[in-house]
Amino acid sequence: VPTQSVDPRTGETFGPVLEDSSEAEVDQVVAQAAAAAGPWGDLSHAARARVLRAAADALDERAGELVPLADHESGLGEPRLTGELVRTTFQLRMFAGALESGVDLAGTLDPAVPGPPPAGHPELRRVLVPIGPVAVYGASNFPFAFSVPGGDTASALAAGCPVVVKAHPGHPQTSAAVAQVMVRALLDAGAPAGTLGIVHGLEAGRLLVRHPLIKAAAFTGSYGGGRSLFDLAVGRPDPIPFYGELGSVNPVVVTAGAAARGQGFATEYVDSLTMGTGQFCTNPGLLMVPAGSGLLELVAAEAAARAPGVLLHAGVAELLRANLSRLAGVPGVRTLVDRSRPDAPGARSGPVILAAGATTAEAHPELLRTECFGPVGLVVEYSSTDQLLVLLGLLEGCLVATVHGEEAEPLSATLVQRLAHIAGRVVWNGWPTGVAVCAGQQHGGPHPATTNALHTSVGTAAVLRFLRPVAYQSVPVGLLAPNTPIL
Amino acid sequence: VPTQSVDPRTGETFGPVLEDSSEAEVDQVVAQAAAAAGPWGDLSHAARARVLRAAADALDERAGELVPLADHESGLGEPRLTGELVRTTFQLRMFAGALESGVDLAGTLDPAVPGPPPAGHPELRRVLVPIGPVAVYGASNFPFAFSVPGGDTASALAAGCPVVVKAHPGHPQTSAAVAQVMVRALLDAGAPAGTLGIVHGLEAGRLLVRHPLIKAAAFTGSYGGGRSLFDLAVGRPDPIPFYGELGSVNPVVVTAGAAARGQGFATEYVDSLTMGTGQFCTNPGLLMVPAGSGLLELVAAEAAARAPGVLLHAGVAELLRANLSRLAGVPGVRTLVDRSRPDAPGARSGPVILAAGATTAEAHPELLRTECFGPVGLVVEYSSTDQLLVLLGLLEGCLVATVHGEEAEPLSATLVQRLAHIAGRVVWNGWPTGVAVCAGQQHGGPHPATTNALHTSVGTAAVLRFLRPVAYQSVPVGLLAPNTPIL
Repeated sequence: VPTQSVDPRTGETFGPVLEDSSEAEVDQVVAQAAAAAGPWGDLSHAARARVLRAAADALDERAGELVPLADHESGLGEPRLTGELVRTTFQLRMFAGALESGVDLAGTLDPAVPGPPPAGHPELRRVLVPIGPVAVYGASNFPFAFSVPGGDTASALAAGCPVVVKAHPGHPQTSAAVAQVMVRALLDAGAPAGTLGIVHGLEAGRLLVRHPLIKAAAFTGSYGGGRSLFDLAVGRPDPIPFYGELGSVNPVVVTAGAAARGQGFATEYVDSLTMGTGQFCTNPGLLMVPAGSGLLELVAAEAAARAPGVLLHAGVAELLRANLSRLAGVPGVRTLVDRSRPDAPGARSGPVILAAGATTAEAHPELLRTECFGPVGLVVEYSSTDQLLVLLGLLEGCLVATVHGEEAEPLSATLVQRLAHIAGRVVWNGWPTGVAVCAGQQHGGPHPATTNALHTSVGTAAVLRFLRPVAYQSVPVGLLAPNTPIL
Repeated sequence: VPTQSVDPRTGETFGPVLEDSSEAEVDQVVAQAAAAAGPWGDLSHAARARVLRAAADALDERAGELVPLADHESGLGEPRLTGELVRTTFQLRMFAGALESGVDLAGTLDPAVPGPPPAGHPELRRVLVPIGPVAVYGASNFPFAFSVPGGDTASALAAGCPVVVKAHPGHPQTSAAVAQVMVRALLDAGAPAGTLGIVHGLEAGRLLVRHPLIKAAAFTGSYGGGRSLFDLAVGRPDPIPFYGELGSVNPVVVTAGAAARGQGFATEYVDSLTMGTGQFCTNPGLLMVPAGSGLLELVAAEAAARAPGVLLHAGVAELLRANLSRLAGVPGVRTLVDRSRPDAPGARSGPVILAAGATTAEAHPELLRTECFGPVGLVVEYSSTDQLLVLLGLLEGCLVATVHGEEAEPLSATLVQRLAHIAGRVVWNGWPTGVAVCAGQQHGGPHPATTNALHTSVGTAAVLRFLRPVAYQSVPVGLLAPNTPIL
């Protein structure tokens, strides 16, 4: 299936027609990655850090070409994409810094203890080694930060693993251009050939996750796509770890105390809901407010005043409208604002606000579990704490849950602690969009938000997904691989 | 299928006939575990540590009954089982100590950084929370240390997760007796009811791993059994982590320098090979020695002099003989010692030594990849370093690989580094049997040794299998769950 770029603002195709990678091409790229695994993993951490910094520098230098190209393909706008590229290169440098400081890669030196077991034991030096070549699947909504040069690639490279990226068809030219810049920068900075490769096409993506030389995979995207790749990964003769970040319904719960925040709250909520035309996996699509607090009406009025935005591609618009008509058709659900079909060319949507009472939501839990990717908010009004807690019991796993409350309200601690059972991140009096890239971040969560709740795809801990422990028992330091942490 | 204990020394059944757990019973045990998850997870780490110590004390107090019962069912002998119980209670106390010191459970406090993103960010407190109720599958060859009270149970309890154990049919009475002692001790020490449960039967084990309230599973046993449970775990609507330790062919490689060790080496090798009648997943079943060094002959003579031992049950004896005839039938393989069918009642085997040249092994890599569970050693003689390295390339993932060499030989570093690519643990001038229970241990390794090479089933790091990170963003300390590490 040949791919061509589409301008989502007009629906028109542009640029070269790109062929999907053939099986032979996938084989070749993976074989090169496998050949690079030894030398890339054996590079000292300092040398690996220099390579990551060189890649970041090269991308920054080419921002003037890459950002307009990504904007043409994604419609996300140059200000946002400029910021995203800054975040992306920040991320590459963060992993370089982690390699230099060694903090996330240090092991455990357990000195010999004389005497019989179980207390006595030989020296054991437990260190982390690269797992092998990693497949990374780019996401449509972050042409930089979750695509070719994104967090999955950066963390796998930092771990000492070569990477083969399956480009997202929503931004094929950006993917190819970024790969070209990075491959050149990696080579120039001393990385072995094959440390980064790229393939195109759905079938190439399937071949990749089943390839015997691929040892782990990371994916950001839809539940359906992620689950089918997960099934291939765990169905292999030798199953491999598959880190799927599959999107999420992210609840925002407002206590009675916080409901008094009124218009300020409504403005900030709609800002978060409509940012990037709502196309974030951390989008706060579910809002739970006290009935009669007036917040529902303020949110609806605020949303009605916002202009439509561009969507990533026609498929996003179609899915948004399909999910919307499903939710809006549930008996008891009211549609307060629906700007999902603006009178404009290309793929676009304005804000949508649906409303439901707690009894409706309880009777139709799919309302609390259906991600409507785009600027769509469902506001559920609850009449009592008991009613709210019943609703929380119906929520599925999510990337992030938010509480707006007052510290003195007894409900606040209950909400924080209950939501921690289903979320990877709990936000207090803030907004879920905008995922900080730092050591304390956890971007993950219980299924269906991810396929592996033990890991994060953002922040320095992301590197742990691609490292495997090895214990050296009584092995003299002189015999260890050159970059083994000596502790 | 009702189960009755069998004395492997005589083949005779004894004791009560135990019915398999019904679906309703499995449901009930899991529901109790799920009800315990909140209160057990919310106990302070200090209180949880007291409960683990109480369980250890209760098991030690009952050693006089438990050890003879386990011996009657397993035939492992009272000295070994006494040591195993000591190791088991040491392990429970090690996790108690880890909870008290907090070292493996501490999180990351990332203070707020002022300024715009990506450098600026809110406060993020990343901590580890229990994943939920865990299913543990007991192993036949360790009635204590890898069964009801073993490392999987101890580490899951330490993580704050209730445990439901599927008892191994090889020691049903020991399992029931140990569970009774532990359940009582846990309750008396303040754990909620349901913190530990037990089920019996193959079908109960299948129901358990698919039960919606079970959130992770840990298994020690055969590849076939483990893989079929793994497939159920990852085939769920909500896949769960499955930590399978599936056994291993563990190579021991001897350099020219170490070959001079002669008789001392042969004695130690056969000690390790025949310990526990060879029924360890770390058994050194594959020995690679320089051709013409004389080690093969010394090992064969030493093995021929050793008495047969009791096997765990008739199934182990049957499988051993089936694998053995497969390997001995490969053209080029010589059988130097075969005491696999001693003239004695019950399930027993003496040592077996097979021999093959490097070219035979290269032509028939199944020789290097077939675990013969029992006291069976295949000795491969290599004639050059190149030939040895080709053979290493044919090895599959293993739990532990061993090098016997001299530090000054250039080959030694090559072997250590090559074997680290396929092993969870690399031993220098020692023996793979006897897995130390400590912070630096890694008992795991690439597939097919395990289904998840990122984790260990022995040592304090085993607790990480059952903990999920949560990031609290700007959440005041007063709202966090009581046992959240404050850092």
